[in-house]
This record gives sequence, structure tokens and C-alpha cells, in this order.
Amino acid sequence: MSEPSNFYTQKCYQQNSSNPLTPTMEDYLEMIYRLLLRNPVVRIGELSVQLNVKPSSSTKIVQTLKEKGYINYEQYSYISLTEQGEALGAYLYARHNILHDFFCTVNHSNSELEVVEMVEHFIDKETLENIEHLTHYLHDHKY
Amino acid sequence: MSEPSNFYTQKCYQQNSSNPLTPTMEDYLEMIYRLLLRNPVVRIGELSVQLNVKPSSSTKIVQTLKEKGYINYEQYSYISLTEQGEALGAYLYARHNILHDFFCTVNHSNSELEVVEMVEHFIDKETLENIEHLTHYLHDHKY
Repeated sequence: MSEPSNFYTQKCYQQNSSNPLTPTMEDYLEMIYRLLLRNPVVRIGELSVQLNVKPSSSTKIVQTLKEKGYINYEQYSYISLTEQGEALGAYLYARHNILHDFFCTVNHSNSELEVVEMVEHFIDKETLENIEHLTHYLHDHKY
Repeated sequence: MSEPSNFYTQKCYQQNSSNPLTPTMEDYLEMIYRLLLRNPVVRIGELSVQLNVKPSSSTKIVQTLKEKGYINYEQYSYISLTEQGEALGAYLYARHNILHDFFCTVNHSNSELEVVEMVEHFIDKETLENIEHLTHYLHDHKY
């Protein structure tokens, strides 16, 4: 039998991730940040419509994000971002846009929402920066 | 309130995926294919060591892969690939290598196993082909 290898299953990597938020929580925080860019306030109803989920699911995740210190929220009221939530939301929003630009460039298309929504949660900061540089390089080279 | 949007959570995309295999099943099939490239036979024990999982976990997934028609396996015996398993295993192995080459090129590094293991399950065929072309382009341009 061989020596132990460096391979692990995706499940194992995900379980050992140091990320304090699950992919679902990240999707919610990113959307709250996105909505607050164009609207003065966000409510559960609007958030649910934008993420195509039930209001009861939104309430649950919003409650968790509040407990983790990313948002302020009282039932039947508005959702707002804490300082920590604002910082992470801005990062998640930028990560989404950088990856969307990259995948559109690679696939010569205008929209790559699905692949971005799937992979964005697993792209670390360094790789994201390098993908951003690469995309600029490709634009400069009219790839 | 706005119109429904095109955004969905990662969970929703994953639940509606047409992929017959989960990320975990893909990891196992890819590893069985990889091991059969260098060994004449594969057993549960070796597979478990290579994936850093318990033999009982391997047995469960191997059983599912057998039920789905990707492998041949009898308890305490060897694992072999069916024609369908050989074809998909080859694709998963190639997908892994293409993405590993891409991420190493982007990050100017020699190993990017973790990010590849995380994202490979969500990269569709067309995007994979385009990433392969891009990586060749980057090599040609000594990026």
C-alpha cells in the first residue's frame, strides 16, 4: 500500500475551512450589500425576491448573520450592515465581480452568473488577486 | 419591491444540478481512475489511504458508484471501472489536470490542489475547454 497522499475530498476541505460563513451565508451577505448600494434600506421580503428563496429561509440566515455580528436586524424592520458586515460584504461583492469579469472573458460571453455563484466561495484572496491581474492582462491583449 | 432577479444561492444551483454524481462521488471516481493508471488493481484500503478517508466511508461511496453503473465491485475484492466509469473517470482526471495547470499558471506556483479540489466539480465542459485554451495561450505568452 502507498504512503498517505495529499488528496482530500471536497467535503473534507469544506469541513476544515477556516471561513466563518457558509456559501449560503456569503450569498445573503453579498446580496444585502448589493441591494444597499442602490436602495436606502433592505427588508426580508426584498432580499428573498432577489435571491429567489422563501422569506422564512431568509429570516433564518439573516438571524445567523446578526448573531455573527455582520448585520443589524429586528423582526419586521430593516436590515443594515455592521462595520464588519460592510467590510466583508464589499469583499464578497468585489470577488463576485472580478470572477464574473474573468469567466465572461474566458467564455467570450456577457453573463456567467451560474459558474460564478458556484465557485466564488472557494477562491482564496491570493488567487482572486491573481485572477484580477490576469483578467486585466487579457483585456490589454484583447483576448 | 423589484422584479425577481437572476441570482440564486449556491445551494439552489447545486440542488438543481443535472450532474448524476455529487462532488464526493466525483472525487472517488477520479481517484479510482488515477490509481488504475499506475496500479493493475485497486482495493478499498488503498482508495481510503489515497483520499484520506475511513474505509467505511469508501465502502459506502463505492457501493453507490456501483449502483449507478460506474464501477464493478464485490466485497473484499478489487474495484474496476465499467465502460461508463472509464469514460467519466478519464474526463474527471483530465478536468482536474487542466484546472491544476491553470491555477498553477495564475498563481505562479507548483501546487494548487486545494482550490482545484474545491472548484473542479462546478466547472462545466465549455468553460473547461476555454480554460484549457487560455492556459495554452498563457504558456505561449510566457505569462
